[in-house]
Amino acid sequence: MTLPPTGVFPRLPLSSRAEADPHHSLDPSGRRPGDESPSVVALGGGHGLSANLAALRRITPLLTAVVTVADDGGSSGRLRDELGVLPPGDLRMALAALCDDSEWGRTWRDVMQHRFSSAQGRATALDNHALGNLLIVTLWELLGDPVAGLEWAGALLGARGRVLPMSTQPLVIAGDVPGAGDPDRPEGPGAVRTITGQAVLAKQADVCNVRLVPADAPACPQAVEAVGLADWVILGPGSWHTSVLPHLLLPGLRRAICDSPARRCVTLNLSPDTETQGKTAADHLRVLHAYCPDLTLDVVLADPSATEDGADLEEVAASLGAEVFYADVRAHPGTAVHNTLRLAAAYQEIFERHR
Amino acid sequence: MTLPPTGVFPRLPLSSRAEADPHHSLDPSGRRPGDESPSVVALGGGHGLSANLAALRRITPLLTAVVTVADDGGSSGRLRDELGVLPPGDLRMALAALCDDSEWGRTWRDVMQHRFSSAQGRATALDNHALGNLLIVTLWELLGDPVAGLEWAGALLGARGRVLPMSTQPLVIAGDVPGAGDPDRPEGPGAVRTITGQAVLAKQADVCNVRLVPADAPACPQAVEAVGLADWVILGPGSWHTSVLPHLLLPGLRRAICDSPARRCVTLNLSPDTETQGKTAADHLRVLHAYCPDLTLDVVLADPSATEDGADLEEVAASLGAEVFYADVRAHPGTAVHNTLRLAAAYQEIFERHR
Repeated sequence: MTLPPTGVFPRLPLSSRAEADPHHSLDPSGRRPGDESPSVVALGGGHGLSANLAALRRITPLLTAVVTVADDGGSSGRLRDELGVLPPGDLRMALAALCDDSEWGRTWRDVMQHRFSSAQGRATALDNHALGNLLIVTLWELLGDPVAGLEWAGALLGARGRVLPMSTQPLVIAGDVPGAGDPDRPEGPGAVRTITGQAVLAKQADVCNVRLVPADAPACPQAVEAVGLADWVILGPGSWHTSVLPHLLLPGLRRAICDSPARRCVTLNLSPDTETQGKTAADHLRVLHAYCPDLTLDVVLADPSATEDGADLEEVAASLGAEVFYADVRAHPGTAVHNTLRLAAAYQEIFERHR
Repeated sequence: MTLPPTGVFPRLPLSSRAEADPHHSLDPSGRRPGDESPSVVALGGGHGLSANLAALRRITPLLTAVVTVADDGGSSGRLRDELGVLPPGDLRMALAALCDDSEWGRTWRDVMQHRFSSAQGRATALDNHALGNLLIVTLWELLGDPVAGLEWAGALLGARGRVLPMSTQPLVIAGDVPGAGDPDRPEGPGAVRTITGQAVLAKQADVCNVRLVPADAPACPQAVEAVGLADWVILGPGSWHTSVLPHLLLPGLRRAICDSPARRCVTLNLSPDTETQGKTAADHLRVLHAYCPDLTLDVVLADPSATEDGADLEEVAASLGAEVFYADVRAHPGTAVHNTLRLAAAYQEIFERHR
């Protein structure tokens, strides 16, 4: 085990941060003079965002993750319900994806991701809680500020970049399923049924009218600022309705994304999930346009093996202002998992083409 | 908030530890050439050990805490029972006492000591669990080695010194209460009643035949080694039967303590607790002698305000080979809490006198 020696942890007074912090400079984007790394904001949630961050941290140190806060399932849902905090799970996964490959980074990443299970097969109160969720919640309870708590968690992990919630207020996702009404109610089976909660919604196909509750929650100011200062804003991959779309449904964040001078990239999924069963790659873009007509794009990143109808995709992309960049980024045939280094290479090429 | 800058955490390969680690040298005691700091091992548990460590870390960097692992109450008891691990609570408190006063040290100390409680007054599964207990258990589950797990927790905290369990096996303390038999049983009310478990035992006066179950558990090898290499071995303050005595009941550790070339100091409590109601300062030494007749001492540190019969105390101390060092180390009149800096000053004077 390579332990950092006792007593050599950085204990820098605020005044010395400028010299020591590679991300710190007078440039508000965080870029040092002479540094050509692009400043990137990746928006999403869950595994899609983690895959993106694991790739992006390899090509730029100026990386901000903006994460959905509508999860209501599992460990996060219990903490949100019992302690009245933001659901920490997607934020924890994003932090873990930003750890580097040193023994320090790997160990604390594994600590954050560790889930408890009882020894003797008995169910216990801790079962399925991720330690990182509990650590993040502890920092929030101590510091009283979600953004500061995530900064401390990132500092522990030596995270390459930072992680922000899309809002500092827990959100709820709701949507309607047409023709799924209750046959026993006066409206009959043809009516619309409203589904509330990310955990349930993520298992539901053909949802329309996806919305956030409350509809007008404030966006996290630091997230809005990061989007405004970025060179690139990247949406997706991820669960389309519950991880990608929410960023365009929060008024303050939608405005920041649409108005940012940054270039905008949408990274498509490698296969449709339950939420978007039967939808083509082009349909995924149509969903974003339907909910956010002001959105223009520069690049759509697509894996050719996940693109059934290239002409249709290119046409929809062009109508949003974007070219389609095709790259084989699938880890293995038959899986929907991204290969981190090939995804990183694709982004690097995209960034260079549009410099 | 003074955050350590992102990305500057020490990531030292093993080979560079010797240069960077102030505790590392070829001297197996951990002392650098020319360093005159004494190497100190403090044995105990709970608040008494924490008070000792908070004082000792101010006068030497060569500090090892050896901690009881028989707790079966509260958060520790639940974790021990549900997950089959060492009770982490006293180890966590010892680590917290070794944090320095930087913002980094204070923040992670507060994180470790934070206890969950539910938001809306409803009891939840997490209630009363200390985050530090959960973090330590996570490291144990990941690394499979209690000593390595505590090293990582200490590295996170920037702890000044290290914390070891007395045994890597969870222990049970038992004791007998004479004349407390069950009136409904054939032996009658005059018989001995056996009490098992630290949480219950700590609330019981007049316990005799205190013992560990199992009686022959292995001592933690690193603790035995530290005692053998120390300049000073310090027992107490603390709950006499449940935090101080156990170190003399574990065969391997008792042998190391009695055989060590180190000087031995017993630090007495500031007031009798439930366990030792009615016992004088001298009686506390008699208890140690009764359980461990081989134990000799060099110094007994006593607060004059807690010493009813000085002549008796000095006589018992002398019979064990020790002088009594009197020092006013009480934080305030009427409290049993130590003043950290006066306790540190007392130790410093003791160490200098016996150099």
